[in-house]
Amino acid sequence: MAHVVIVGGGFGGLAVAKRLARQRGVAVTLVDRRNFHVFQPLLYQVATGGLSPADICAPLRSVLAPYKNVRTLLGEVTGFDLDGRRVLLSDGELAYDYLVIAAGARHHYFGHEEWEAVAPGLKTIEDATEIRGRILGAFEAAEKEPDAERRRALLTFLIVGGGPTGVELAGTLGEIANDTLKEDFRSFRPEEARIILLEAGPRILTAFPAELGAAAERALLSLGVRVKTGVGVAAVDAEGVTLGDGERIASRTVLWGAGVKASPLGAKLGAELDRAGRVVVTPTCQLPGRAEVFVLGDMAARQGQPLPGVAPVAMQQGRYVGDAIGALLLGKALEPFVYLDKGNLATIGRAAAIADFGKFRMSGFLAWLLWLFIHIMYLVGFRNRVQVFVHWAFQYLSFNRGARLITGR
Amino acid sequence: MAHVVIVGGGFGGLAVAKRLARQRGVAVTLVDRRNFHVFQPLLYQVATGGLSPADICAPLRSVLAPYKNVRTLLGEVTGFDLDGRRVLLSDGELAYDYLVIAAGARHHYFGHEEWEAVAPGLKTIEDATEIRGRILGAFEAAEKEPDAERRRALLTFLIVGGGPTGVELAGTLGEIANDTLKEDFRSFRPEEARIILLEAGPRILTAFPAELGAAAERALLSLGVRVKTGVGVAAVDAEGVTLGDGERIASRTVLWGAGVKASPLGAKLGAELDRAGRVVVTPTCQLPGRAEVFVLGDMAARQGQPLPGVAPVAMQQGRYVGDAIGALLLGKALEPFVYLDKGNLATIGRAAAIADFGKFRMSGFLAWLLWLFIHIMYLVGFRNRVQVFVHWAFQYLSFNRGARLITGR
Repeated sequence: MAHVVIVGGGFGGLAVAKRLARQRGVAVTLVDRRNFHVFQPLLYQVATGGLSPADICAPLRSVLAPYKNVRTLLGEVTGFDLDGRRVLLSDGELAYDYLVIAAGARHHYFGHEEWEAVAPGLKTIEDATEIRGRILGAFEAAEKEPDAERRRALLTFLIVGGGPTGVELAGTLGEIANDTLKEDFRSFRPEEARIILLEAGPRILTAFPAELGAAAERALLSLGVRVKTGVGVAAVDAEGVTLGDGERIASRTVLWGAGVKASPLGAKLGAELDRAGRVVVTPTCQLPGRAEVFVLGDMAARQGQPLPGVAPVAMQQGRYVGDAIGALLLGKALEPFVYLDKGNLATIGRAAAIADFGKFRMSGFLAWLLWLFIHIMYLVGFRNRVQVFVHWAFQYLSFNRGARLITGR
Repeated sequence: MAHVVIVGGGFGGLAVAKRLARQRGVAVTLVDRRNFHVFQPLLYQVATGGLSPADICAPLRSVLAPYKNVRTLLGEVTGFDLDGRRVLLSDGELAYDYLVIAAGARHHYFGHEEWEAVAPGLKTIEDATEIRGRILGAFEAAEKEPDAERRRALLTFLIVGGGPTGVELAGTLGEIANDTLKEDFRSFRPEEARIILLEAGPRILTAFPAELGAAAERALLSLGVRVKTGVGVAAVDAEGVTLGDGERIASRTVLWGAGVKASPLGAKLGAELDRAGRVVVTPTCQLPGRAEVFVLGDMAARQGQPLPGVAPVAMQQGRYVGDAIGALLLGKALEPFVYLDKGNLATIGRAAAIADFGKFRMSGFLAWLLWLFIHIMYLVGFRNRVQVFVHWAFQYLSFNRGARLITGR
């Protein structure tokens, strides 16, 4: 019986486990420090009060319960003994025959880690509820603030980074200010809120063709979002942001979507890392010199050509690695992993999106329906799909966002 | 314009605000330290992973948004200046003509406040997610525990207090162990879990007739819950509980539902308090000697006859106080508050409940349907009703509980 240990229950790790499920001669242990899988593409909906954490999470145990050769373990991986083929945990260890590492990425402050406290990023459920509390807390504080200038700072929301996460956050904030909270306050109009999306590069959504980036920018403008490109951030503090060109913007809510850094577990493999901390792997997703160790998803850098840090890459690599382990057990050689790019989607607010399928491109309401359909279809677990559909149908009809809770101690 | 300040957005405070909404010559400010109302009767569903926090919460601002004479304020009340007619906040103050205090209650450890850290009670959303994390965390730890005795302690759940909260928690835990988690673990069977409900009095659910209490006890037994009556708790620590008769039960998860104590705000009024810290009020819910100050709900003790600490009491008092303020503005005298007891319900697990409407009593599945219907009807906000209904319909059909997340840092 070959024992496969998978580190991480994200899109990549789950895909490996499902691929190896019910396979003869294989026992799988999936270890994660959380007891649930997070559907990361919808985290921004939790951060903006549209969905609840449980709507976009699925308990790993229930996802994997049907597969009797798969065991789930809640545990914190602290390191690896590659020669001894053991994964080290904070409270024990796991011996393996094959090891798959798919621990994902965190946000990245490019050497300014002190900014994290004032400009949180969006990678975990706790990040999302923290950001939700900050956004709603700023509106609450504005209601009580008699000083016009301080109120203006409270109602200024700065999003750093014009990638999909930044665009989705900015669009949804525009919606919240213009629609959701319209009737809720007595001492100011929520439309007074300024939402500013900052991008250091020449335009937003650089992964998309220029025409779709422009369409997204128009959609953001119509939601009241100001897009500022070509200028970076020089400093962030609790009172606001200083831009690279010296401009100072007073803001009490700065959100960070500007960069990602691979899980620090990669550094514990003693292998080559790229600048973002990703492990450089072979074309077959293996650790060079260690045929029994695979690294995939946001943690892995393919030699030469980087792949985008999106769910489809992790899922395709996960299925590939599951099959590769089966092939190795039969003594077969491995073909290199090939990423099949099925297209790229981003959403802006409640009824606009852009879609890029190579020759076929679209933007607007139809692209949004497509985005909605694909995201609901991919949500892990049947219950979540029904629930999220009900939430969204209701949200769409009512402009309401029911999960507007400021929680935490 | 008479300014009414309401402290607390629970069932009582909201009922006052709604009653005074759209009333001429009245401006209302409702202040709460949370931005949402909690439907407390369903907190145990959040604590056991059946519902998400947002399913049983409604943002106070959206509930009160339609009423233009009502203002909502997120703020922490620190005291009162009754002579100057001001409410003191941590960051300001509010002048009032009429003051309504409805800040509810917390759990009570009868002088053993140090037990709270090891035996949390269930009064807030954070309590519920904390308890959810402890229950699920105990099962996770048991999966990794090779020692049989320690595993037994991890799989022993002790609930202190045989009132409705204790019974609901114990019943739902029985369900979780016997159904929900059935397929989820590899190194033990979840049915091995021991769930023990402790009650110091001679029987559980003393607010109900003895025959219904006995029916609830039978329903608990059929869910695998052991009910121990007539014995109190002498000591609680991280390893377990020592009972009044000297018996020691090793348990890593102790939940507290044994007593309540009124909000400490009551003590800041300089008025008479009862043993549970409740403010002794006149038959018209007023503070003796202060006709413009009303205290209601779990914080108030009616002279002579205490009322149960349930939502209907707070809601009826809230409507009464709203009308009373209207009457005072017209110079009318007040009639005493009369509580109309419409009946009493408690639920045990997924398909049993007991109902007491005086002469008409019932138990079993029909009582459960009635319980379900009434609780969904009373849920604040249309969206929550639809959502909770979908959750429950799905849970009922699938034995699943999708909100099984261990969150928090």
